[in-house]
Amino acid sequence: MSDGMSLAKRNLVTIDDLSTGEIESVFSLADEMSAGMGQQSNLCKGKIMASLFFEPSTRTRLSFEAAMYRLGGNVITAVDIGATSLAKGESLADMARIVGSYADIIVIRHPWEGAAKVVADYAGVPVINAGDGGHQHPTQTLLDLYTIRKERQTIKGLKIALWGDLKYGRTIHSLIFALAKFGASILFCPSPGLEVPEHIIRKLVAEYGGDVEVIKASENKPKTDAFPVDAVYITSSSPHQLAMMPGINFEVELKKGVDAIYVTRPQKERFTAAEGGENKKYQVVDKHLLKGKEFSKTLVMHPLPRIDELACDLDADPRSQYFKQAAHGVPVRMAILALLLGAKNVPVSRDDSPAPKIEYPVYRRDSGVKCPNTKCASIQKSELKYLHPEFKIVNHEPLTLRCVYCEHGFEPEYIASSEWHEGKLSNKKYHAAGSHWARDIKPENLIIFASAAEAEAQGFKPNHYMEGHPK
Amino acid sequence: MSDGMSLAKRNLVTIDDLSTGEIESVFSLADEMSAGMGQQSNLCKGKIMASLFFEPSTRTRLSFEAAMYRLGGNVITAVDIGATSLAKGESLADMARIVGSYADIIVIRHPWEGAAKVVADYAGVPVINAGDGGHQHPTQTLLDLYTIRKERQTIKGLKIALWGDLKYGRTIHSLIFALAKFGASILFCPSPGLEVPEHIIRKLVAEYGGDVEVIKASENKPKTDAFPVDAVYITSSSPHQLAMMPGINFEVELKKGVDAIYVTRPQKERFTAAEGGENKKYQVVDKHLLKGKEFSKTLVMHPLPRIDELACDLDADPRSQYFKQAAHGVPVRMAILALLLGAKNVPVSRDDSPAPKIEYPVYRRDSGVKCPNTKCASIQKSELKYLHPEFKIVNHEPLTLRCVYCEHGFEPEYIASSEWHEGKLSNKKYHAAGSHWARDIKPENLIIFASAAEAEAQGFKPNHYMEGHPK
Amino acid sequence: MSDGMSLAKRNLVTIDDLSTGEIESVFSLADEMSAGMGQQSNLCKGKIMASLFFEPSTRTRLSFEAAMYRLGGNVITAVDIGATSLAKGESLADMARIVGSYADIIVIRHPWEGAAKVVADYAGVPVINAGDGGHQHPTQTLLDLYTIRKERQTIKGLKIALWGDLKYGRTIHSLIFALAKFGASILFCPSPGLEVPEHIIRKLVAEYGGDVEVIKASENKPKTDAFPVDAVYITSSSPHQLAMMPGINFEVELKKGVDAIYVTRPQKERFTAAEGGENKKYQVVDKHLLKGKEFSKTLVMHPLPRIDELACDLDADPRSQYFKQAAHGVPVRMAILALLLGAKNVPVSRDDSPAPKIEYPVYRRDSGVKCPNTKCASIQKSELKYLHPEFKIVNHEPLTLRCVYCEHGFEPEYIASSEWHEGKLSNKKYHAAGSHWARDIKPENLIIFASAAEAEAQGFKPNHYMEGHPK
Repeated sequence: MSDGMSLAKRNLVTIDDLSTGEIESVFSLADEMSAGMGQQSNLCKGKIMASLFFEPSTRTRLSFEAAMYRLGGNVITAVDIGATSLAKGESLADMARIVGSYADIIVIRHPWEGAAKVVADYAGVPVINAGDGGHQHPTQTLLDLYTIRKERQTIKGLKIALWGDLKYGRTIHSLIFALAKFGASILFCPSPGLEVPEHIIRKLVAEYGGDVEVIKASENKPKTDAFPVDAVYITSSSPHQLAMMPGINFEVELKKGVDAIYVTRPQKERFTAAEGGENKKYQVVDKHLLKGKEFSKTLVMHPLPRIDELACDLDADPRSQYFKQAAHGVPVRMAILALLLGAKNVPVSRDDSPAPKIEYPVYRRDSGVKCPNTKCASIQKSELKYLHPEFKIVNHEPLTLRCVYCEHGFEPEYIASSEWHEGKLSNKKYHAAGSHWARDIKPENLIIFASAAEAEAQGFKPNHYMEGHPK
Repeated sequence: MSDGMSLAKRNLVTIDDLSTGEIESVFSLADEMSAGMGQQSNLCKGKIMASLFFEPSTRTRLSFEAAMYRLGGNVITAVDIGATSLAKGESLADMARIVGSYADIIVIRHPWEGAAKVVADYAGVPVINAGDGGHQHPTQTLLDLYTIRKERQTIKGLKIALWGDLKYGRTIHSLIFALAKFGASILFCPSPGLEVPEHIIRKLVAEYGGDVEVIKASENKPKTDAFPVDAVYITSSSPHQLAMMPGINFEVELKKGVDAIYVTRPQKERFTAAEGGENKKYQVVDKHLLKGKEFSKTLVMHPLPRIDELACDLDADPRSQYFKQAAHGVPVRMAILALLLGAKNVPVSRDDSPAPKIEYPVYRRDSGVKCPNTKCASIQKSELKYLHPEFKIVNHEPLTLRCVYCEHGFEPEYIASSEWHEGKLSNKKYHAAGSHWARDIKPENLIIFASAAEAEAQGFKPNHYMEGHPK
Repeated sequence: MSDGMSLAKRNLVTIDDLSTGEIESVFSLADEMSAGMGQQSNLCKGKIMASLFFEPSTRTRLSFEAAMYRLGGNVITAVDIGATSLAKGESLADMARIVGSYADIIVIRHPWEGAAKVVADYAGVPVINAGDGGHQHPTQTLLDLYTIRKERQTIKGLKIALWGDLKYGRTIHSLIFALAKFGASILFCPSPGLEVPEHIIRKLVAEYGGDVEVIKASENKPKTDAFPVDAVYITSSSPHQLAMMPGINFEVELKKGVDAIYVTRPQKERFTAAEGGENKKYQVVDKHLLKGKEFSKTLVMHPLPRIDELACDLDADPRSQYFKQAAHGVPVRMAILALLLGAKNVPVSRDDSPAPKIEYPVYRRDSGVKCPNTKCASIQKSELKYLHPEFKIVNHEPLTLRCVYCEHGFEPEYIASSEWHEGKLSNKKYHAAGSHWARDIKPENLIIFASAAEAEAQGFKPNHYMEGHPK
């Protein structure tokens, strides 16, 4: 093993688990892997990767497995959701502990958001998130960034348009934070109703700096606008652009074109009935849309699979990167596998800027508020037996929690103190989260409820100041 | 290859296929495998294991596959029940012959009891039973024993409680015989209605010696009894305990605690409607149940997956062995694979006591009685084309047969002689199995019928002494 | 690498992709592979085979995978149809390009006829067809031929009976052309209603020479005829037999017996309602059928799996080859994998006779006729986005097209010229395919329609000479 940074035994659950410097190192190693693709590597000889896919996938799974074999390792695979113990009601933690005793590294895809974190918490071996519901898909983001950097030599200062389903596309969620971290500006071009979730925008501004300008629906964007931009994120590392904020001129931005347009498939399988399902129409990205001079060098990207949102007439176009993206998946995943397995260390690049993580206070209590995201791993029946809800308090006014599993943000309505007045049960009261009482409760005594009903179920009575407050 | 015992080309269909000495040798080799887990072994380089799973499984399959890869071998896998030729009506024998021409060893899990024996009979390569219906699961038993021996240095003389579903749990069935063979005493603690099948008790007493004391349901066990023991098996190798029999004092036994409690999941997928299915309640094993001083050193075991029958509050308890059991699966299976593939020989340990097999007479006829177990491989449509029913006559009064495939025991009702009186068709008679006629028929002439209807369908008439005998 | 013929980077989509000399070379290499089966080969070390099975299969997939492992390579597998991106509507071309960037060679089974050609067109790596609907299964044919040659030393001049489902059995379709190419005569013995498709007979005569004599249904074959022969193909390489044609004496042919009888399973899953499905009866091949002296040396073959069409009473018969066939699959597939991967070259055998391909003119237009075969890959919704119908014009009177994907032949009804008279729209006319107009249209101007409706939908009017022509 060479000197340098070791990522051995680390997990890759969200893209935040890697600093920009570490990502750059992954890319250098991916270059090396790419160059040596012809000859068999023995870097991971004797190592076993467990490939656990609880959601349909061919490309991601085969890409990981090809990567592991190219490193000289072996793979054990479970793709048969219905045919697994989970179908019998087994918990993620049990599965993680057991498979962690068979394999040296685990790759997991799961429909529950936060599932990869649960597995990482219990496996005892490194865990890579290959997609957990609509949450994140960090290795997809790595190969997306790798593709951009290979074509443009840098990511900093680029302008990237994200197109299509920005609500459910987990690849989008990982990518947004990564682009921000690397100092790219982002144009959000969602299909109507599939805008980036509010909690992601909030995290972007709070933790990555920069600013987001949202076009209000009432602004009546010109119908001729080829790019239905509805929001723009300008990184704080672009000071002269930042100066334009607020009141960013979308027209000016667009006339300069974009460095890349990243198209995504409508994740119809995650749509609610209201979101339209199979019959909804999406604007197609094709040669015609990108015919303008300002798009002459725009990279056309897509995580694939595509259905109709990206036309085949672009397949032979030199701007199209999507098949290259897929191909880059193998060397990028080889690099990350070799690093997490400790088979390879890499020199840390100079301009490392660690993930901009803020140390938020943590709220963790067995009783009380649960994550309201119905797809969150932490609230599933099989997991409730052992998992304790846990949240970061990311804001105080209004009180805002972020689930540590699925990272959904929400504002709970009621709180109480575990030290009630004079210890009399009749004084066991709950308060509106925004009331002055809330500010007086010591953090260590704070109890948070998802609803008034939950508070009352635990024996708390409404504070008299809450009379008239809608339950 | 070293000198010593060779298990090459042997099958592992039931735990009886290995003597205690051979099992001890497997354990020694497993210790060796465990110690060398870090470096890649080349013991089975160039060998292929076929992993054929016709029932849901993740852990057992992945454990076998990890074991084969750690030995340097390769694996071909079929887990897709509906997607296999069997769905097209192919026989087990055909499948066995064909896969046996691709692979060097076959691991099979199948819902039909006796399926592994059929595969072993035709494959031409060693076959390992990874669970055949409710019949056996011998490698699970090996890792269970290995875990006990690692913690207690011996199995002989220990007192082991088996808890939960003792009727359908195949791991239980393999384990009972193994524990008896090694001289452990067994406390049966079944969930109501899920007692150990009668034919297993019978085999235990007949072939392993010792004695089984069953508490009659009418005895009104004290409600406070934490352990709802309904039967106790005392091995014949524990003479002073045996002396206590019959009239064993359950209370005394329990006050001394147990060396291990082996909990099993209710096999709801095998339940009949009467057995309650999803809604039935089972007593949970948790910290509270095991709080007594007498359980302070009790090993808590479970083959996993668990649902609710074993509480998570024991996970971090030093008595808990279940995750260790799972982890031991890899070195134990490495050992057994290396031995059956002939990649490794082991010195035979001194105190070998071969499996206590009794040479029972065999009954084998194309026409006549069939195994009454509806899950037996031998009576399935695709197998009837070539398989001949075959039974061991394990008792004469009453006449009791044991199917050589699924090992179910039963008492057929009617018999006849293939030499009927004076060769006259009118003398072709059948008799009650318990009648004096039965004793007079020479073994080579014996014909056994499952029912009177079957006898009559073959042209036999009831013996006149049977008048009034209920058909 | 040795000198000699290189098959590197070639595809194996139909058996026509290999000349007889190349096939002989595959067999020599298979002999070599067979001899060295004991020791691990490193011929394909570091190579990855992708095994993509979109239809149920155990034997073919496991055989390929075992072959690749025996060569020292690795395998990535997708068997989970419902669980793949194709279920999301992804095209074969996208899948091919992506998997082609992960793996060094692709093995594909797919229910659509012509799917393997589509994958081969886009993958960028060698592609092996492991069965595409009812079209072809060339590696099965290779192992069938290999088995015959091993038993009879030659294929030329042998008389082979094909038995059972000759309509849907893709193994049969590949085999027919291969036998013809090698100079064997073929007796067709179909189950009633499951005769060899007309387009295959036509191709056989047109491209492989020789002659086919069909017994008309009205001829009232003797009921006692054990072999319900309905057609005979006599290769042109058997001149003295050819002299007998036409008016071949079926009785005489049959009295001499056959060198091999190749039995196939009724492909019930492909049957139309009219073809009877599950309840139809098929004549069983068993010891009784083959009891005659003339069959004393007849090889009994079957691609397996079998259900009831081939009796188990032949399993131990020395004439039976079917388990040997399956076993030969591994060395034959090792040979083909090593050759296509360029890991091995082979000397070209002397008596090479390249595939008898006729250079037919090609018809290719975006609008106009589509393949009428509902199972053809080229007309599936996901493929229409980028695939252009393409046909060989294999006959002019009547105008007959052969789809380049599924190889189905058909006679389109209407044509037109892209240069209509004086450029006036009112002169845009379509004509019956058999009319004199058809002969006058220059090939480069030819437009072909599947139906009158299609022609009219494109603005063409019926030619006045077509009055009274049924639409």
